[in-house]
Amino acid sequence: MPAYDVLCIGNAIVDIIASADDDFLVGNGIIKGAMNLIDAERAELLYSRMGPATEASGGSAGNTAAGIASFGARAAFFGKVSSDQLGELYTHDIRAHGVAFDSAPLSGRPPTARSMIFVTPDGERSMNTYLGACVELGPDDVETAKTDAKVTYFEGYLWDPPRAKEAIRLAAKLTHEAGGEVAMTLSDPFCVDRYRDEFLDLMRSGTVDIVFANEHELISLYQTPSFETALEAIRKDCKLAAVTRSAAGSIVVSGDRTVSVEAMKVERVVDTTGAGDLYAAGFLYGYTAGLDHALCGKLGSLAAGLVIQQIGPRPREDLRAAAVQVGLIDGFGN
Amino acid sequence: MPAYDVLCIGNAIVDIIASADDDFLVGNGIIKGAMNLIDAERAELLYSRMGPATEASGGSAGNTAAGIASFGARAAFFGKVSSDQLGELYTHDIRAHGVAFDSAPLSGRPPTARSMIFVTPDGERSMNTYLGACVELGPDDVETAKTDAKVTYFEGYLWDPPRAKEAIRLAAKLTHEAGGEVAMTLSDPFCVDRYRDEFLDLMRSGTVDIVFANEHELISLYQTPSFETALEAIRKDCKLAAVTRSAAGSIVVSGDRTVSVEAMKVERVVDTTGAGDLYAAGFLYGYTAGLDHALCGKLGSLAAGLVIQQIGPRPREDLRAAAVQVGLIDGFGN
Repeated sequence: MPAYDVLCIGNAIVDIIASADDDFLVGNGIIKGAMNLIDAERAELLYSRMGPATEASGGSAGNTAAGIASFGARAAFFGKVSSDQLGELYTHDIRAHGVAFDSAPLSGRPPTARSMIFVTPDGERSMNTYLGACVELGPDDVETAKTDAKVTYFEGYLWDPPRAKEAIRLAAKLTHEAGGEVAMTLSDPFCVDRYRDEFLDLMRSGTVDIVFANEHELISLYQTPSFETALEAIRKDCKLAAVTRSAAGSIVVSGDRTVSVEAMKVERVVDTTGAGDLYAAGFLYGYTAGLDHALCGKLGSLAAGLVIQQIGPRPREDLRAAAVQVGLIDGFGN
Repeated sequence: MPAYDVLCIGNAIVDIIASADDDFLVGNGIIKGAMNLIDAERAELLYSRMGPATEASGGSAGNTAAGIASFGARAAFFGKVSSDQLGELYTHDIRAHGVAFDSAPLSGRPPTARSMIFVTPDGERSMNTYLGACVELGPDDVETAKTDAKVTYFEGYLWDPPRAKEAIRLAAKLTHEAGGEVAMTLSDPFCVDRYRDEFLDLMRSGTVDIVFANEHELISLYQTPSFETALEAIRKDCKLAAVTRSAAGSIVVSGDRTVSVEAMKVERVVDTTGAGDLYAAGFLYGYTAGLDHALCGKLGSLAAGLVIQQIGPRPREDLRAAAVQVGLIDGFGN
């Protein structure tokens, strides 16, 4: 049996979360709902304009790893922090979720990455990410032992720092050699726009087997206004794709199979940060446990539905217990 | 007119907040509901046992300052952070609340203070505070200009670090000379037990005019099992005392006047961190605006009632708007 169910690789980021109204986003040139990459200077400017905040460990793939561990599966994480206080918080939190995390921290500059997240009254989050230490993630950080996973999952955001893609290609190769599969999330429509050809090549070359995307990212990938057209395209380009559509649920395509999954009913959306990450967590937990695609999608919907009812991107509840409570898994094996 | 309505002086602390059950508290020797002082070594041990956490700026008097500013009054804060990432978070947050904060940060060790707060399912918080940079707060940090306040308010917790009491005595003297009043919170029953004679002397010598306490602290102060006896004792020892009794509301005594105030009805207590601090904020906002004691108490109940329905010790809502909405103030002057 592989050492881990899922190995997640991503930018290790501490979220700094505050409320803001839509005028604030417009006045500061922040693209709503997106991940806006910023440099140190702009980070300082935006922080000076930000209201009182709370902090929580985040980062897309880190959130997914925490979610998978909360379902009771064996998760590991690769990512780069610096040896500073935010790096200590990040390291503590991901380990406290039960995720194996041993990437060596940078000693010195740049500091641990942070994302200033402005949550508007509709619950939508607009991220402003200073990558900091993440720019140093490279193939040296790929520990062979940890790539012995059923699935190695990474975020498309890793194409932003300069050397992380080398780490991904190495981890994907090692995972495939050990008999595992490789999954990615397209991360963000603008990220897809930055790296469209490379992402398509990852899929078509067989480097990536499984793709997570929301409908905006999918449409951006294939540059078509038609969701149906894009869905048929991705069906051909990878072994399995799970596409989320917010309150409209998700669709899982694999070969000629198509499964539609409802979203969880949510009374009030507090903060959408982590929704896609936790969908992937639920899905991958189910997938690596050998459950069928419909059940995988339902576990994803459950995890995403819970995380959008709280501030911060990682589950406060025990997701395994939550899944047992609603009858998705039986509380023993699965 | 004085430069500030309220100057608050306290330990500048970043809260690290996680859930825990009662067994965890017992197993780790943490006194439930109290502020447990810890050293660096125990901080490291407890953190290694703590679950995934979120961070928020805290510190009793800092929370009160943030609350006063949220009511729209002019608040300043004295407290000591270090020039590290947690210190930057603290400085950002208190200023973002609209509080004047210019205490010079320590350059280097010890690091900014943090308190690991374990929130049990009943919403009660048990604090474990490593004082860090706070031990360096001293009379040099008292800026004469800022003591030009209607009320200078400080926390009893300041008797824990070695030199802060000198800062308090100086600030109290300057405030009185400028025609202002001095207020304190008794902070915690165990804190009262550590410094009972000094606290009584502060009141009886006229260094302190106004005292905030909860019933446990009041009973600890006078070492009597009778709440009534203790209440009559504090009535004689200071000009005004506001005593909170959780869901039973609060009692304000001043000379031979006694006012009882109801607590706000709260559906579900999430995290009691900051309840007493925000009661003091609402009360002092009203007091420095010249409102009567009953209305001051109601404003305290409102602020406390709101903060215990969220995670973290500082108000996310605009307290002035909340007070206008329930009709406690009129939205113009007061």
